[in-house]
Amino acid sequence: MPRYRVTVSYDGTDFHGWQKQPGFRTVQEEIEQALVPLSPEGAPVSVHGAGRTDAGVHARGQVAHFDLARDIAPASLRRALNDRLAGDVRILDARVCADDFDAQRSAHAKEYRYRIWNAEVMAPTLRRYRCRVGRALNLAAMRRAAADYVGEHDFAAFSANPQREIGSTVRHVYSVEIHADLPEVEIRVTGNGFLYKMVRSLSGYLISVGTGRAPADAVPAILASRVRTARVESAPPQGLFLWQVWYDEGERLRIDQNLFPAYAPAGRNSP
Amino acid sequence: MPRYRVTVSYDGTDFHGWQKQPGFRTVQEEIEQALVPLSPEGAPVSVHGAGRTDAGVHARGQVAHFDLARDIAPASLRRALNDRLAGDVRILDARVCADDFDAQRSAHAKEYRYRIWNAEVMAPTLRRYRCRVGRALNLAAMRRAAADYVGEHDFAAFSANPQREIGSTVRHVYSVEIHADLPEVEIRVTGNGFLYKMVRSLSGYLISVGTGRAPADAVPAILASRVRTARVESAPPQGLFLWQVWYDEGERLRIDQNLFPAYAPAGRNSP
Repeated sequence: MPRYRVTVSYDGTDFHGWQKQPGFRTVQEEIEQALVPLSPEGAPVSVHGAGRTDAGVHARGQVAHFDLARDIAPASLRRALNDRLAGDVRILDARVCADDFDAQRSAHAKEYRYRIWNAEVMAPTLRRYRCRVGRALNLAAMRRAAADYVGEHDFAAFSANPQREIGSTVRHVYSVEIHADLPEVEIRVTGNGFLYKMVRSLSGYLISVGTGRAPADAVPAILASRVRTARVESAPPQGLFLWQVWYDEGERLRIDQNLFPAYAPAGRNSP
Repeated sequence: MPRYRVTVSYDGTDFHGWQKQPGFRTVQEEIEQALVPLSPEGAPVSVHGAGRTDAGVHARGQVAHFDLARDIAPASLRRALNDRLAGDVRILDARVCADDFDAQRSAHAKEYRYRIWNAEVMAPTLRRYRCRVGRALNLAAMRRAAADYVGEHDFAAFSANPQREIGSTVRHVYSVEIHADLPEVEIRVTGNGFLYKMVRSLSGYLISVGTGRAPADAVPAILASRVRTARVESAPPQGLFLWQVWYDEGERLRIDQNLFPAYAPAGRNSP
Protein backbone atom coordinates (compact mmCIF):
# COMPACT_ATOMS: atom_id res chain seq x y z
CA MET A 1 0.00 0.00 0.00
CA PRO A 2 1.19 3.54 -0.66
CA ARG A 3 3.41 5.33 1.81
CA TYR A 4 2.80 9.02 2.36
CA ARG A 5 5.16 11.68 3.62
CA VAL A 6 3.73 14.77 5.29
CA THR A 7 5.28 18.01 6.53
CA VAL A 8 3.61 19.10 9.74
CA SER A 9 3.65 22.45 11.52
CA TYR A 10 2.28 22.83 15.03
CA ASP A 11 1.96 25.14 17.96
CA GLY A 12 3.25 23.01 20.81
CA THR A 13 1.74 25.16 23.56
CA ASP A 14 -1.24 22.91 24.25
CA PHE A 15 0.39 19.57 23.44
CA HIS A 16 2.33 17.17 25.60
CA GLY A 17 4.74 16.86 22.74
CA TRP A 18 4.77 14.81 19.57
CA GLN A 19 4.88 11.27 20.91
CA LYS A 20 1.74 9.41 21.94
CA GLN A 21 1.18 9.14 25.70
CA PRO A 22 -2.02 7.68 27.13
CA GLY A 23 -4.18 10.38 28.67
CA PHE A 24 -2.30 13.28 27.10
CA ARG A 25 -2.93 15.36 24.03
CA THR A 26 -0.14 14.68 21.52
CA VAL A 27 0.42 15.61 17.89
CA GLN A 28 1.14 12.04 16.79
CA GLU A 29 -2.12 10.76 18.21
CA GLU A 30 -4.22 13.56 16.75
CA ILE A 31 -2.84 12.89 13.27
CA GLU A 32 -3.44 9.17 13.67
CA GLN A 33 -7.02 9.86 14.77
CA ALA A 34 -7.55 12.17 11.79
CA LEU A 35 -6.38 9.37 9.48
CA VAL A 36 -8.81 6.74 10.78
CA PRO A 37 -11.80 7.97 8.73
CA LEU A 38 -9.59 7.92 5.61
CA SER A 39 -8.43 4.38 6.26
CA PRO A 40 -10.34 1.40 4.76
CA GLU A 41 -12.67 -0.03 7.39
CA GLY A 42 -11.27 2.60 9.78
CA ALA A 43 -8.17 0.54 10.33
CA PRO A 44 -5.69 2.26 12.65
CA VAL A 45 -2.77 4.03 10.99
CA SER A 46 0.64 4.43 12.61
CA VAL A 47 2.32 7.78 12.04
CA HIS A 48 6.11 7.93 12.38
CA GLY A 49 7.77 11.30 12.95
CA ALA A 50 11.30 12.43 12.13
CA GLY A 51 11.86 13.52 15.69
CA ARG A 52 10.11 13.76 19.01
CA THR A 53 9.40 17.18 20.37
CA ASP A 54 8.75 17.75 24.08
CA ALA A 55 5.70 19.34 25.65
CA GLY A 56 5.49 22.99 24.66
CA VAL A 57 8.00 22.72 21.81
CA HIS A 58 6.82 23.91 18.40
CA ALA A 59 7.44 22.59 14.91
CA ARG A 60 7.65 24.56 11.72
CA GLY A 61 8.65 21.61 9.55
CA GLN A 62 8.23 18.27 11.32
CA VAL A 63 8.14 15.39 8.83
CA ALA A 64 6.26 12.12 9.25
CA HIS A 65 5.42 9.04 7.18
CA PHE A 66 2.61 6.51 7.30
CA ASP A 67 1.18 3.71 5.19
CA LEU A 68 -2.41 4.13 4.13
CA ALA A 69 -4.19 1.32 2.27
CA ARG A 70 -5.80 3.78 -0.09
CA ASP A 71 -4.79 5.77 -3.13
CA ILE A 72 -5.64 9.37 -2.44
CA ALA A 73 -4.29 12.45 -4.20
CA PRO A 74 -1.75 14.10 -1.85
CA ALA A 75 -3.49 17.47 -2.08
CA SER A 76 -6.78 15.83 -1.12
CA LEU A 77 -5.10 14.00 1.73
CA ARG A 78 -3.65 17.27 3.02
CA ARG A 79 -7.04 18.99 2.88
CA ALA A 80 -8.86 16.06 4.46
CA LEU A 81 -6.41 15.97 7.35
CA ASN A 82 -6.47 19.73 7.87
CA ASP A 83 -10.28 19.63 7.88
CA ARG A 84 -10.16 17.15 10.77
CA LEU A 85 -7.21 18.52 12.75
CA ALA A 86 -7.42 21.32 15.30
CA GLY A 87 -6.00 24.68 14.26
CA ASP A 88 -2.80 24.23 16.22
CA VAL A 89 -1.69 21.44 13.86
CA ARG A 90 -1.50 21.90 10.10
CA ILE A 91 -0.35 19.60 7.33
CA LEU A 92 1.74 21.87 5.10
CA ASP A 93 2.58 19.31 2.48
CA ALA A 94 1.72 15.73 1.59
CA ARG A 95 3.27 13.51 -1.05
CA VAL A 96 3.59 9.86 -1.95
CA CYS A 97 7.06 8.60 -1.06
CA ALA A 98 9.13 5.48 -1.59
CA ASP A 99 8.09 2.42 0.43
CA ASP A 100 11.46 2.49 2.17
CA PHE A 101 11.30 6.17 3.12
CA ASP A 102 11.48 6.51 6.89
CA ALA A 103 10.92 9.97 8.32
CA GLN A 104 13.44 9.32 11.08
CA ARG A 105 16.00 6.91 9.61
CA SER A 106 16.09 8.53 6.18
CA ALA A 107 16.76 11.94 7.73
CA HIS A 108 20.07 13.38 6.66
CA ALA A 109 20.01 16.22 9.18
CA LYS A 110 17.65 18.14 11.41
CA GLU A 111 17.59 21.83 12.16
CA TYR A 112 16.23 23.23 15.39
CA ARG A 113 15.95 26.92 16.19
CA TYR A 114 15.87 28.32 19.69
CA ARG A 115 14.30 31.77 19.74
CA ILE A 116 15.03 34.37 22.38
CA TRP A 117 13.33 37.71 22.98
CA ASN A 118 16.20 39.71 24.46
CA ALA A 119 14.35 42.62 26.04
CA GLU A 120 13.11 43.66 29.46
CA VAL A 121 9.49 43.46 28.36
CA MET A 122 7.98 40.53 26.46
CA ALA A 123 5.89 41.15 23.35
CA PRO A 124 2.48 39.78 24.41
CA THR A 125 1.73 38.16 21.06
CA LEU A 126 5.09 36.33 21.13
CA ARG A 127 4.91 35.11 24.72
CA ARG A 128 4.17 31.52 23.73
CA TYR A 129 6.88 31.42 21.05
CA ARG A 130 9.97 32.99 22.56
CA CYS A 131 12.11 32.70 25.66
CA ARG A 132 12.57 36.13 27.17
CA VAL A 133 16.03 37.05 28.44
CA GLY A 134 16.08 40.44 30.11
CA ARG A 135 19.81 40.95 30.42
CA ALA A 136 21.67 42.02 27.28
CA LEU A 137 23.31 38.95 25.77
CA ASN A 138 27.02 38.85 25.02
CA LEU A 139 26.75 37.42 21.52
CA ALA A 140 30.49 37.18 20.97
CA ALA A 141 30.85 34.97 24.06
CA MET A 142 27.88 32.86 22.96
CA ARG A 143 29.41 32.36 19.50
CA ARG A 144 32.72 31.40 21.02
CA ALA A 145 31.08 28.76 23.20
CA ALA A 146 28.84 27.58 20.36
CA ALA A 147 31.85 26.86 18.14
CA ASP A 148 32.89 24.13 20.58
CA TYR A 149 29.60 22.30 20.06
CA VAL A 150 30.38 21.73 16.39
CA GLY A 151 31.70 18.32 15.45
CA GLU A 152 31.21 14.74 16.53
CA HIS A 153 31.14 14.60 20.31
CA ASP A 154 29.69 12.59 23.14
CA PHE A 155 26.89 14.93 24.24
CA ALA A 156 25.92 12.99 27.39
CA ALA A 157 26.60 16.10 29.49
CA PHE A 158 23.96 17.95 27.42
CA SER A 159 21.28 15.27 27.68
CA ALA A 160 18.63 15.75 30.34
CA ASN A 161 18.79 12.05 31.08
CA PRO A 162 21.75 10.18 29.60
CA GLN A 163 20.56 6.93 31.22
CA ARG A 164 17.42 7.14 29.13
CA GLU A 165 19.40 7.20 25.90
CA ILE A 166 19.45 3.95 23.96
CA GLY A 167 22.90 3.26 22.61
CA SER A 168 25.50 5.86 21.90
CA THR A 169 25.33 9.42 23.22
CA VAL A 170 27.65 10.51 20.42
CA ARG A 171 26.09 12.92 17.96
CA HIS A 172 27.42 15.04 15.12
CA VAL A 173 26.53 18.73 15.32
CA TYR A 174 27.08 20.19 11.85
CA SER A 175 26.59 23.85 12.67
CA VAL A 176 25.50 26.27 15.38
CA GLU A 177 24.70 29.78 14.21
CA ILE A 178 23.56 32.66 16.38
CA HIS A 179 21.52 35.19 14.44
CA ALA A 180 20.66 38.45 16.16
CA ASP A 181 18.39 41.29 15.14
CA LEU A 182 17.56 42.65 18.56
CA PRO A 183 15.44 42.02 20.43
CA GLU A 184 15.35 38.75 18.49
CA VAL A 185 18.20 36.30 19.02
CA GLU A 186 18.02 32.91 17.36
CA ILE A 187 20.24 29.89 17.94
CA ARG A 188 20.19 27.62 14.87
CA VAL A 189 21.50 24.12 15.46
CA THR A 190 21.86 21.50 12.72
CA GLY A 191 22.99 17.97 13.39
CA ASN A 192 22.55 14.32 12.48
CA GLY A 193 20.49 13.73 15.60
CA PHE A 194 19.92 14.99 19.11
CA LEU A 195 19.65 13.47 22.57
CA TYR A 196 16.73 14.06 24.92
CA LYS A 197 16.45 17.85 25.58
CA MET A 198 19.86 18.29 23.98
CA VAL A 199 18.99 21.42 21.98
CA ARG A 200 17.38 23.05 25.02
CA SER A 201 20.49 22.14 27.05
CA LEU A 202 22.88 23.50 24.41
CA SER A 203 20.75 26.66 24.24
CA GLY A 204 20.41 26.98 28.00
CA TYR A 205 24.16 26.87 28.43
CA LEU A 206 24.66 29.47 25.68
CA ILE A 207 22.18 31.75 27.46
CA SER A 208 24.18 31.32 30.68
CA VAL A 209 27.30 32.29 28.76
CA GLY A 210 25.55 35.25 27.16
CA THR A 211 24.41 36.58 30.52
CA GLY A 212 27.84 36.10 32.08
CA ARG A 213 26.82 33.31 34.44
CA ALA A 214 29.00 30.69 32.71
CA PRO A 215 32.40 30.83 31.01
CA ALA A 216 32.60 30.77 27.22
CA ASP A 217 35.53 28.37 27.17
CA ALA A 218 34.21 25.52 29.34
CA VAL A 219 32.35 23.54 26.67
CA PRO A 220 35.22 21.14 25.85
CA ALA A 221 35.61 20.28 29.55
CA ILE A 222 31.85 19.81 29.99
CA LEU A 223 31.71 17.53 26.95
CA ALA A 224 34.70 15.55 28.21
CA SER A 225 33.09 15.11 31.63
CA ARG A 226 30.16 13.24 30.03
CA VAL A 227 28.23 14.16 33.20
CA ARG A 228 25.21 16.39 33.30
CA THR A 229 25.65 18.96 36.06
CA ALA A 230 23.89 22.10 37.30
CA ARG A 231 26.21 24.10 35.03
CA VAL A 232 23.93 23.08 32.19
CA GLU A 233 20.35 24.30 32.39
CA SER A 234 17.61 23.39 29.94
CA ALA A 235 16.13 26.48 28.30
CA PRO A 236 12.31 26.58 28.51
CA PRO A 237 10.37 24.77 25.77
CA GLN A 238 8.39 27.64 24.26
CA GLY A 239 11.48 29.06 22.54
CA LEU A 240 12.23 25.88 20.62
CA PHE A 241 11.13 25.04 17.07
CA LEU A 242 11.86 21.90 15.08
CA TRP A 243 12.60 23.98 12.01
CA GLN A 244 13.21 21.49 9.22
CA VAL A 245 14.38 18.00 8.42
CA TRP A 246 16.78 17.36 5.58
CA TYR A 247 16.70 14.18 3.53
CA ASP A 248 18.57 13.70 0.27
CA GLU A 249 21.74 15.72 0.14
CA GLY A 250 20.91 19.34 -0.39
CA GLU A 251 17.20 18.77 -0.32
CA ARG A 252 15.09 21.59 0.98
CA LEU A 253 11.57 20.87 2.04
CA ARG A 254 8.94 22.20 -0.28
CA ILE A 255 7.83 24.63 2.39
CA ASP A 256 11.02 26.55 1.86
CA GLN A 257 10.23 27.28 -1.76
CA ASN A 258 6.49 27.45 -1.65
CA LEU A 259 4.46 27.55 1.42
CA PHE A 260 6.51 29.53 3.88
CA PRO A 261 8.94 31.79 2.03
CA ALA A 262 8.52 34.37 4.75
CA TYR A 263 9.74 32.07 7.45
CA ALA A 264 13.46 32.31 7.07
CA PRO A 265 15.25 35.18 8.79
CA ALA A 266 15.21 35.73 12.49
CA GLY A 267 14.68 39.17 13.89
CA ARG A 268 11.91 40.20 11.58
CA ASN A 269 9.15 38.91 13.77
CA SER A 270 6.22 41.10 14.52
CA PRO A 271 3.99 41.40 17.56
CA MET B 1 -0.87 65.38 40.73
CA PRO B 2 1.45 63.93 38.10
CA ARG B 3 0.06 62.65 34.81
CA TYR B 4 1.64 59.54 33.34
CA ARG B 5 1.74 58.37 29.75
CA VAL B 6 2.14 54.67 29.04
CA THR B 7 2.64 52.68 25.85
CA VAL B 8 0.74 49.42 26.03
CA SER B 9 1.01 46.27 23.94
CA TYR B 10 -1.57 43.52 24.17
CA ASP B 11 -2.75 40.29 22.66
CA GLY B 12 -6.43 40.98 22.05
CA THR B 13 -7.40 37.32 21.67
CA ASP B 14 -8.83 36.92 25.16
CA PHE B 15 -10.12 40.47 25.66
CA HIS B 16 -13.45 42.04 24.80
CA GLY B 17 -11.48 44.98 23.52
CA TRP B 18 -9.93 47.98 25.21
CA GLN B 19 -12.95 49.75 26.63
CA LYS B 20 -14.46 48.82 29.99
CA GLN B 21 -17.67 46.82 29.82
CA PRO B 22 -19.28 45.37 32.96
CA GLY B 23 -18.87 41.62 33.06
CA PHE B 24 -16.23 41.43 30.35
CA ARG B 25 -12.48 41.24 30.45
CA THR B 26 -11.07 44.46 28.98
CA VAL B 27 -7.59 45.96 28.80
CA GLN B 28 -8.65 49.33 30.23
CA GLU B 29 -10.16 47.74 33.32
CA GLU B 30 -7.20 45.45 33.96
CA ILE B 31 -4.79 48.40 33.86
CA GLU B 32 -7.05 50.40 36.16
CA GLN B 33 -7.19 47.47 38.59
CA ALA B 34 -3.40 47.13 38.46
CA LEU B 35 -3.09 50.82 39.39
CA VAL B 36 -5.28 50.64 42.50
CA PRO B 37 -2.56 49.24 44.79
CA LEU B 38 -0.25 52.03 43.60
CA SER B 39 -2.81 54.72 44.30
CA PRO B 40 -2.90 56.49 47.73
CA GLU B 41 -5.59 54.86 49.87
CA GLY B 42 -6.38 52.64 46.88
CA ALA B 43 -8.28 55.42 45.18
CA PRO B 44 -9.60 54.42 41.76
CA VAL B 45 -7.60 55.61 38.75
CA SER B 46 -9.15 56.35 35.36
CA VAL B 47 -7.09 55.27 32.37
CA HIS B 48 -7.73 57.01 29.06
CA GLY B 49 -6.60 55.33 25.84
CA ALA B 50 -5.72 56.86 22.48
CA GLY B 51 -8.19 54.60 20.70
CA ARG B 52 -10.65 51.84 21.37
CA THR B 53 -9.90 48.43 19.97
CA ASP B 54 -12.61 45.83 19.44
CA ALA B 55 -12.72 42.33 20.86
CA GLY B 56 -9.92 40.24 19.40
CA VAL B 57 -7.97 43.21 18.02
CA HIS B 58 -4.34 43.50 19.12
CA ALA B 59 -2.19 46.49 19.99
CA ARG B 60 1.51 46.86 19.49
CA GLY B 61 1.63 50.51 20.58
CA GLN B 62 -1.57 51.66 22.26
CA VAL B 63 -1.02 54.81 24.31
CA ALA B 64 -2.88 55.83 27.46
CA HIS B 65 -2.69 58.49 30.13
CA PHE B 66 -3.81 58.66 33.75
CA ASP B 67 -3.36 60.85 36.79
CA LEU B 68 -1.85 59.18 39.82
CA ALA B 69 -1.57 61.09 43.11
CA ARG B 70 1.89 59.74 43.71
CA ASP B 71 5.38 60.46 42.47
CA ILE B 72 6.83 57.24 41.23
CA ALA B 73 9.77 56.75 38.90
CA PRO B 74 8.40 55.81 35.46
CA ALA B 75 10.58 52.69 35.25
CA SER B 76 9.29 51.57 38.65
CA LEU B 77 5.73 52.27 37.57
CA ARG B 78 6.22 50.18 34.45
CA ARG B 79 7.64 47.26 36.43
CA ALA B 80 4.97 47.48 39.11
CA LEU B 81 2.22 47.39 36.50
CA ASN B 82 3.79 44.54 34.54
CA ASP B 83 4.16 42.58 37.78
CA ARG B 84 0.41 42.87 38.34
CA LEU B 85 -0.86 42.51 34.77
CA ALA B 86 -1.47 39.21 33.00
CA GLY B 87 1.03 38.22 30.31
CA ASP B 88 -1.23 39.25 27.46
CA VAL B 89 -0.87 42.92 28.44
CA ARG B 90 2.51 44.61 28.81
CA ILE B 91 3.48 48.18 29.59
CA LEU B 92 6.31 48.88 27.14
CA ASP B 93 7.05 52.38 28.29
CA ALA B 94 5.98 54.80 31.01
CA ARG B 95 6.85 58.46 31.38
CA VAL B 96 5.61 61.57 33.14
CA CYS B 97 3.80 63.83 30.67
CA ALA B 98 2.34 67.33 30.65
CA ASP B 99 -0.86 67.83 32.63
CA ASP B 100 -2.66 68.70 29.43
CA PHE B 101 -1.49 65.64 27.50
CA ASP B 102 -4.51 63.59 26.40
CA ALA B 103 -3.80 60.22 24.81
CA GLN B 104 -6.76 60.63 22.46
CA ARG B 105 -7.10 64.37 21.85
CA SER B 106 -3.37 65.05 21.64
CA ALA B 107 -2.92 62.32 19.05
CA HIS B 108 -1.64 63.65 15.77
CA ALA B 109 -2.23 60.42 13.86
CA LYS B 110 -2.81 56.74 14.41
CA GLU B 111 -1.48 53.82 12.45
CA TYR B 112 -3.28 50.50 12.21
CA ARG B 113 -1.94 47.46 10.41
CA TYR B 114 -4.12 44.69 9.04
CA ARG B 115 -2.14 41.49 8.59
CA ILE B 116 -3.05 38.78 6.10
CA TRP B 117 -1.57 35.31 5.71
CA ASN B 118 -2.07 34.75 2.00
CA ALA B 119 -1.62 30.99 1.75
CA GLU B 120 -3.77 27.90 1.57
CA VAL B 121 -2.54 26.64 4.92
CA MET B 122 -2.34 28.78 8.05
CA ALA B 123 0.82 28.82 10.13
CA PRO B 124 -0.38 27.39 13.47
CA THR B 125 1.65 29.78 15.60
CA LEU B 126 0.23 32.78 13.72
CA ARG B 127 -3.39 31.70 13.73
CA ARG B 128 -4.42 34.23 16.38
CA TYR B 129 -2.55 37.10 14.71
CA ARG B 130 -3.33 36.92 11.02
CA CYS B 131 -6.33 36.69 8.74
CA ARG B 132 -5.84 33.86 6.30
CA VAL B 133 -6.82 34.45 2.68
CA GLY B 134 -6.42 31.32 0.58
CA ARG B 135 -6.84 32.81 -2.87
CA ALA B 136 -3.84 34.67 -4.31
CA LEU B 137 -4.43 38.40 -3.82
CA ASN B 138 -4.28 40.83 -6.73
CA LEU B 139 -2.07 43.43 -5.05
CA ALA B 140 -2.20 45.87 -7.97
CA ALA B 141 -5.99 45.99 -7.77
CA MET B 142 -5.85 46.40 -3.99
CA ARG B 143 -3.40 49.28 -4.29
CA ARG B 144 -5.57 50.95 -6.91
CA ALA B 145 -8.61 50.76 -4.64
CA ALA B 146 -6.59 51.80 -1.58
CA ALA B 147 -5.46 55.00 -3.28
CA ASP B 148 -9.09 56.18 -3.28
CA TYR B 149 -9.24 55.92 0.52
CA VAL B 150 -6.57 58.58 0.92
CA GLY B 151 -7.73 62.08 1.73
CA GLU B 152 -10.49 63.69 3.75
CA HIS B 153 -13.73 61.85 3.10
CA ASP B 154 -17.01 61.01 4.74
CA PHE B 155 -16.36 57.37 5.65
CA ALA B 156 -19.91 56.57 6.82
CA ALA B 157 -20.09 53.77 4.23
CA PHE B 158 -17.07 52.14 5.92
CA SER B 159 -18.40 52.40 9.46
CA ALA B 160 -20.06 49.32 10.91
CA ASN B 161 -22.67 51.53 12.51
CA PRO B 162 -22.78 55.13 11.31
CA GLN B 163 -25.72 55.86 13.62
CA ARG B 164 -23.49 55.11 16.57
CA GLU B 165 -20.98 57.76 15.54
CA ILE B 166 -21.08 60.96 17.56
CA GLY B 167 -20.73 63.96 15.29
CA SER B 168 -19.06 63.94 11.93
CA THR B 169 -18.25 60.80 9.99
CA VAL B 170 -15.59 62.71 8.06
CA ARG B 171 -12.06 61.49 8.66
CA HIS B 172 -8.70 62.18 7.05
CA VAL B 173 -6.80 59.09 5.88
CA TYR B 174 -3.19 60.16 5.38
CA SER B 175 -1.87 57.01 3.78
CA VAL B 176 -2.73 53.41 2.90
CA GLU B 177 0.21 51.20 2.03
CA ILE B 178 0.07 47.54 1.08
CA HIS B 179 3.27 45.71 1.91
CA ALA B 180 3.67 42.18 0.62
CA ASP B 181 6.29 39.56 1.28
CA LEU B 182 4.26 36.48 0.57
CA PRO B 183 2.60 34.82 2.30
CA GLU B 184 2.51 37.97 4.42
CA VAL B 185 0.43 40.87 3.17
CA GLU B 186 0.03 43.91 5.38
CA ILE B 187 -2.32 46.86 4.94
CA ARG B 188 -0.95 49.91 6.76
CA VAL B 189 -3.47 52.69 7.33
CA THR B 190 -2.61 56.03 8.90
CA GLY B 191 -5.18 58.71 9.62
CA ASN B 192 -6.31 61.39 12.03
CA GLY B 193 -9.00 59.12 13.42
CA PHE B 194 -11.20 56.18 12.53
CA LEU B 195 -14.88 55.34 12.81
CA TYR B 196 -16.20 52.18 14.47
CA LYS B 197 -14.71 49.15 12.65
CA MET B 198 -13.52 51.48 9.90
CA VAL B 199 -10.08 49.90 9.46
CA ARG B 200 -11.58 46.40 9.33
CA SER B 201 -14.10 47.64 6.78
CA LEU B 202 -11.46 49.33 4.64
CA SER B 203 -9.38 46.14 4.86
CA GLY B 204 -12.33 43.85 4.21
CA TYR B 205 -13.20 45.71 1.02
CA LEU B 206 -9.57 45.60 -0.14
CA ILE B 207 -9.54 41.83 0.42
CA SER B 208 -12.70 41.56 -1.70
CA VAL B 209 -10.95 43.54 -4.41
CA GLY B 210 -7.82 41.41 -4.11
CA THR B 211 -9.79 38.19 -4.52
CA GLY B 212 -11.76 39.56 -7.47
CA ARG B 213 -15.10 39.72 -5.69
CA ALA B 214 -15.30 43.51 -5.84
CA PRO B 215 -14.19 46.12 -8.39
CA ALA B 216 -11.08 48.19 -7.76
CA ASP B 217 -12.66 51.41 -8.99
CA ALA B 218 -15.83 51.51 -6.87
CA VAL B 219 -14.45 53.23 -3.76
CA PRO B 220 -15.38 56.80 -4.79
CA ALA B 221 -18.98 55.71 -5.42
CA ILE B 222 -19.15 53.81 -2.13
CA LEU B 223 -17.80 56.82 -0.23
CA ALA B 224 -20.27 59.12 -1.98
CA SER B 225 -23.18 56.84 -1.12
CA ARG B 226 -22.50 57.33 2.61
CA VAL B 227 -24.43 54.09 3.08
CA ARG B 228 -22.97 50.90 4.47
CA THR B 229 -23.97 48.00 2.24
CA ALA B 230 -23.12 44.31 1.89
CA ARG B 231 -20.45 45.33 -0.62
CA VAL B 232 -18.34 46.25 2.39
CA GLU B 233 -17.42 43.40 4.72
CA SER B 234 -15.52 43.80 7.98
CA ALA B 235 -12.34 41.74 7.98
CA PRO B 236 -12.02 39.53 11.07
CA PRO B 237 -10.47 41.09 14.19
CA GLN B 238 -7.45 38.85 14.70
CA GLY B 239 -5.61 40.42 11.74
CA LEU B 240 -5.77 43.94 13.13
CA PHE B 241 -3.12 45.70 15.21
CA LEU B 242 -3.21 49.23 16.60
CA TRP B 243 0.38 49.77 15.56
CA GLN B 244 1.33 53.18 16.89
CA VAL B 245 0.01 56.57 17.84
CA TRP B 246 1.80 59.73 16.74
CA TYR B 247 1.81 62.87 18.85
CA ASP B 248 4.10 65.83 18.17
CA GLU B 249 4.90 66.19 14.50
CA GLY B 250 7.39 63.56 13.47
CA GLU B 251 7.46 61.94 16.86
CA ARG B 252 8.11 58.25 16.98
CA LEU B 253 7.23 56.35 20.08
CA ARG B 254 10.18 55.16 22.06
CA ILE B 255 9.32 51.57 21.21
CA ASP B 256 10.41 52.28 17.65
CA GLN B 257 13.93 53.19 18.67
CA ASN B 258 14.39 51.00 21.69
CA LEU B 259 12.08 48.29 22.69
CA PHE B 260 10.83 46.88 19.44
CA PRO B 261 13.32 47.56 16.65
CA ALA B 262 12.45 44.22 15.13
CA TYR B 263 8.82 45.07 14.72
CA ALA B 264 8.79 47.07 11.54
CA PRO B 265 8.71 45.17 8.27
CA ALA B 266 5.95 42.86 7.26
CA GLY B 267 6.70 39.54 5.69
CA ARG B 268 9.51 38.52 7.97
CA ASN B 269 7.31 36.83 10.49
CA SER B 270 8.20 33.41 11.69
CA PRO B 271 6.08 30.51 12.84
